[in-house]
Amino acid sequence: MFDEIKVIGFDADDTLWVNETYFRDAEDAFAKLLSAYETPNKIDQELFRKELDNLDIYGYGVKGFMLSMVESALEISNGMVKPEMISEILKIGKDMINKPVEVLEGIPEVLESLSKKYKLIVLTKGDLLDQKRKLKKSNLSHFFHHIEVMTEKKEEDYSEVLNHLEIQPKEFLMIGNSLKSDVLPIINLRSNAVHIPFHTTWEHEKVSPQELENQKYLTLQSASELLTYL
Amino acid sequence: MFDEIKVIGFDADDTLWVNETYFRDAEDAFAKLLSAYETPNKIDQELFRKELDNLDIYGYGVKGFMLSMVESALEISNGMVKPEMISEILKIGKDMINKPVEVLEGIPEVLESLSKKYKLIVLTKGDLLDQKRKLKKSNLSHFFHHIEVMTEKKEEDYSEVLNHLEIQPKEFLMIGNSLKSDVLPIINLRSNAVHIPFHTTWEHEKVSPQELENQKYLTLQSASELLTYL
Repeated sequence: MFDEIKVIGFDADDTLWVNETYFRDAEDAFAKLLSAYETPNKIDQELFRKELDNLDIYGYGVKGFMLSMVESALEISNGMVKPEMISEILKIGKDMINKPVEVLEGIPEVLESLSKKYKLIVLTKGDLLDQKRKLKKSNLSHFFHHIEVMTEKKEEDYSEVLNHLEIQPKEFLMIGNSLKSDVLPIINLRSNAVHIPFHTTWEHEKVSPQELENQKYLTLQSASELLTYL
Repeated sequence: MFDEIKVIGFDADDTLWVNETYFRDAEDAFAKLLSAYETPNKIDQELFRKELDNLDIYGYGVKGFMLSMVESALEISNGMVKPEMISEILKIGKDMINKPVEVLEGIPEVLESLSKKYKLIVLTKGDLLDQKRKLKKSNLSHFFHHIEVMTEKKEEDYSEVLNHLEIQPKEFLMIGNSLKSDVLPIINLRSNAVHIPFHTTWEHEKVSPQELENQKYLTLQSASELLTYL
């Protein structure tokens, strides 16, 4: 099935290590903080809308998320937010940045084994400093030949990176938790993808069932299962 | 003098386009906003201290600067800052991100000319999305073979990039406005550097005269003068 593969690309957040869980926790803390002004559900919706509005200018990552929380707090409270709540929002964000990196189960063993047969690279979205720091904290850096932090993960972004690294689509396999960012654009490039779902997915990364119809990709329950195929 | 040079690296902010001026303007606006609490001089000092404190976790770029302004405002006001001031801080930052890119005089002509004889690359610090956006807005992208956004510009960071791009130090010339980030680390690698000062320099980028003693690098008044040497 994967006979021609020479290079394997790994997504980072929620593929190599836990990430989305910390955003969910931060959103919960944010909703609790502003509970005097709105219901948790409404606060969640407003924050998500604000994140999407700001995505073009802030991009992905914790700093943009922090700025969107501050802006949402001002709006949700109708400009009545207390300064100590703003302090608390900054603290929530800084705590996220300073969290230890929790590598997902089986990942070091899988990378160890695959690195003997394939060239491994990381293709991740997010904040440059954040992602480099997480990679360092993860102790996984030495398995990878190249780390590419991308501002977006659309078809043209992958195409640019593969070209730049002189990788043929048919020789490439992408592994990640997001159908929208790690699987669909890769299949559209006639390359190969394996989907390994994480238990929680950011709303923005979700895709409709129609988009998945007749698409050819493998879904696995955990990274360890990769070793059966590769 | 530069006979062996094959690849020329350009810093971006304040070398290709105006940047520091916008930060100075933002700092002035911030000091004005908080003038009820402190003198402009004290506010400036506090913000600078806060930026340095946060540099490790936020890195360089506008988003970190915005978060440092918010945090400083909370502290300078002793937790009394008004919500509309926080809104105004977010606006100052968003305006910075949305500013058009002002390419420095002579740059397009110099790049046009040099690109015929040398491989040109960009080596810049800062926020990934910010820098990619500025490069796009500048209409200078097509002159460059490679864009590297770096989290730091220390000796080891340059060494890593040059290795990765398979460039020999003696064949490389770095051009930039910062002695600390663009010139000294490059000279320490026994590579070549040209310093083109910009009229304003961030305090954090300044170096002591002692560090510059006996260092060999060329200082030019403008990019156009490069064509006399290259």
